[in-house]
Amino acid sequence: MNPGSQGPIAELLSIGSELLAGETIDTNAAFLGAALGRLGIPLHGVRTLPDDRAAIAAAFAEARVRVPLVVATGGLGPTHDDLTREGLADALGEPLVPDPALEQVLRVRFAAFGRMPESNLRQALRVPSAEALPNPIGSAPGWWADRDGAVAVLMPGVPTEMRRMWEEQVASRIVARFVVRPVSVRAVKTFGMGESALAELVGDLLEAPGEGIDAGIYAHDDGVHLRFWTRGEALTLKLPVARAISLLGQHVYAVDDEQLATIALAALGRRGVRSLASVESGTGGTLLAILAEAPVADGARYAGGLLLTEADDAAAPPADATLRAQLLPADDQGRSRLEVSLSGLVPLGPLHTRVHGSGPQRRRRAAFAALDQVRRALG
Amino acid sequence: MNPGSQGPIAELLSIGSELLAGETIDTNAAFLGAALGRLGIPLHGVRTLPDDRAAIAAAFAEARVRVPLVVATGGLGPTHDDLTREGLADALGEPLVPDPALEQVLRVRFAAFGRMPESNLRQALRVPSAEALPNPIGSAPGWWADRDGAVAVLMPGVPTEMRRMWEEQVASRIVARFVVRPVSVRAVKTFGMGESALAELVGDLLEAPGEGIDAGIYAHDDGVHLRFWTRGEALTLKLPVARAISLLGQHVYAVDDEQLATIALAALGRRGVRSLASVESGTGGTLLAILAEAPVADGARYAGGLLLTEADDAAAPPADATLRAQLLPADDQGRSRLEVSLSGLVPLGPLHTRVHGSGPQRRRRAAFAALDQVRRALG
Repeated sequence: MNPGSQGPIAELLSIGSELLAGETIDTNAAFLGAALGRLGIPLHGVRTLPDDRAAIAAAFAEARVRVPLVVATGGLGPTHDDLTREGLADALGEPLVPDPALEQVLRVRFAAFGRMPESNLRQALRVPSAEALPNPIGSAPGWWADRDGAVAVLMPGVPTEMRRMWEEQVASRIVARFVVRPVSVRAVKTFGMGESALAELVGDLLEAPGEGIDAGIYAHDDGVHLRFWTRGEALTLKLPVARAISLLGQHVYAVDDEQLATIALAALGRRGVRSLASVESGTGGTLLAILAEAPVADGARYAGGLLLTEADDAAAPPADATLRAQLLPADDQGRSRLEVSLSGLVPLGPLHTRVHGSGPQRRRRAAFAALDQVRRALG
Repeated sequence: MNPGSQGPIAELLSIGSELLAGETIDTNAAFLGAALGRLGIPLHGVRTLPDDRAAIAAAFAEARVRVPLVVATGGLGPTHDDLTREGLADALGEPLVPDPALEQVLRVRFAAFGRMPESNLRQALRVPSAEALPNPIGSAPGWWADRDGAVAVLMPGVPTEMRRMWEEQVASRIVARFVVRPVSVRAVKTFGMGESALAELVGDLLEAPGEGIDAGIYAHDDGVHLRFWTRGEALTLKLPVARAISLLGQHVYAVDDEQLATIALAALGRRGVRSLASVESGTGGTLLAILAEAPVADGARYAGGLLLTEADDAAAPPADATLRAQLLPADDQGRSRLEVSLSGLVPLGPLHTRVHGSGPQRRRRAAFAALDQVRRALG
């Protein structure tokens, strides 16, 4: 989402040499970018830093001058490589002091596992201006340090610990600390055409979606999403959403959080199918993984799936209908053929479509393409 | 991997407002961090930038002062939001000039799809000091701009296009342009213990793995990896690898690129199992996905798998042995029980183990834990 002219902005420091060495993919940045955007404090930049005390201190000092909210993840572990605490302390010009309360929490936590390694005492250090943020599922507490008009937030790099700390501790403090107008967002989700084709179909709507409204196009494995957002009245987004739906026609499969698999299961449910099984090959199990994770609606329930590698005489789980998808090997241009069919209560196909790309993305796109074929065929 | 004291270093600019809005997870950074590290040019920092011409220009200008190699991904598309070309041109103080050869390539490419949108002509622009890098699977060519002792490389943000351009065009130019001593890396992969437990077991080996050798511990879903690397003789890594294996004992399942699933299939093969099927529940299909992607060794082949959501009377694909894994719901502390068994030629279990975490990571850890149970039980 765009910066917008008014309101506070944030920067993120992703800290850890393992990120720079390519050992770890930084999923925290996308989570925090989306979460901050929803709070109305757009993320303006991310810097990924090595476990280097001077580099971390310099990055905090520079960011605190530019923006009122600096969020950092990683480098809060117990080892000598974990230097985020030291880096922020240097940037603030404060000493690191043992916090007896934090030490007590650590000792209680480790009592369950046996003795506590001495190195973990580093996790009970704190600068005087920081408030500690509890971490119920890990040993690293976070910090909330609000000084001289700028807030620095430290959270663990482990995604599950970071997300829980964000949801239970950080988001509410940000809402209380900053005067923001939350951003309202609507998404029109399409499948079956590319970004530039969608841009041509919606024309002006992208450049001028309405007073105080912004629009953007984003390509995902489950299709191209057209998003509208505003800091004004959420209701003003109804008009551009309606216009987009009418311009994009049958390419639109859902609005906002509804998922393609849920839509396909609902379409089957309307035809009297109470349960669906799947059989796939060439897709690495992406179709069954997506169906198994789809939020349950009032449509057909998912009974399970089968991935075939070579054998073709295996039986699908028992169900009213069975969706079959076979993805063939890709050609030189990275295009591959996908064959989709339904058997059982609502027989369909075989339908054919093409999938682009390679690797895991190709397999996920194939699974979504199979679900889109069902959605389109059943209306 | 550590910077090391000698040799060139690199910085990466990941460009695109969709990254900051959390619409897209930046997987390119990890790919390029690992790839640059193997070439002997460690990545020292990543900056994620919005589609903002001035911000992009400033980031290029600053990075070119610090490091001799600046790699950028994203912002090379045809729309007015794609401003990486403009940003680098501003930083270099060069004009953007239409390149007739690039235009010809674009026209040929679009001839297959119908007419070319006028906006795509922006992708045929180039600064005089840049050499164009062909993109066989997309419309955005890359750039290689070598001036005043610093190289700037532009590549598309689409991961498949970026990876192909890296492998076919960029890596070889970097090797030819920079004097580097490639880094040799060995990895000892373990399953069943955490990072700090591993650190205690290997003791000194982590701090002093040998002359000119560095060591690091990295947690992944398939266990904790202990890595050693050097710019010196690759053979010097044999000693710390052998010591690590002897210190870590049965926790070690593989060295270097071997995968846990391949190891488990090989162990089954030694017991006379020629084919394995799988049945799983609670795991979202992660076990079958991992088995289906495992490199084929001389062990048991994978015949396919079944994900069950509710029904329990479905039949596994026909095979000599069937691996069953059931992951139960997680408790309050994020721990969940996993039950693993083998039926058929080599009956085993049920074996029980615990899995930590939440979300997709929890499901992947469960799948690896099931494979590790097989590996340990069969020796």
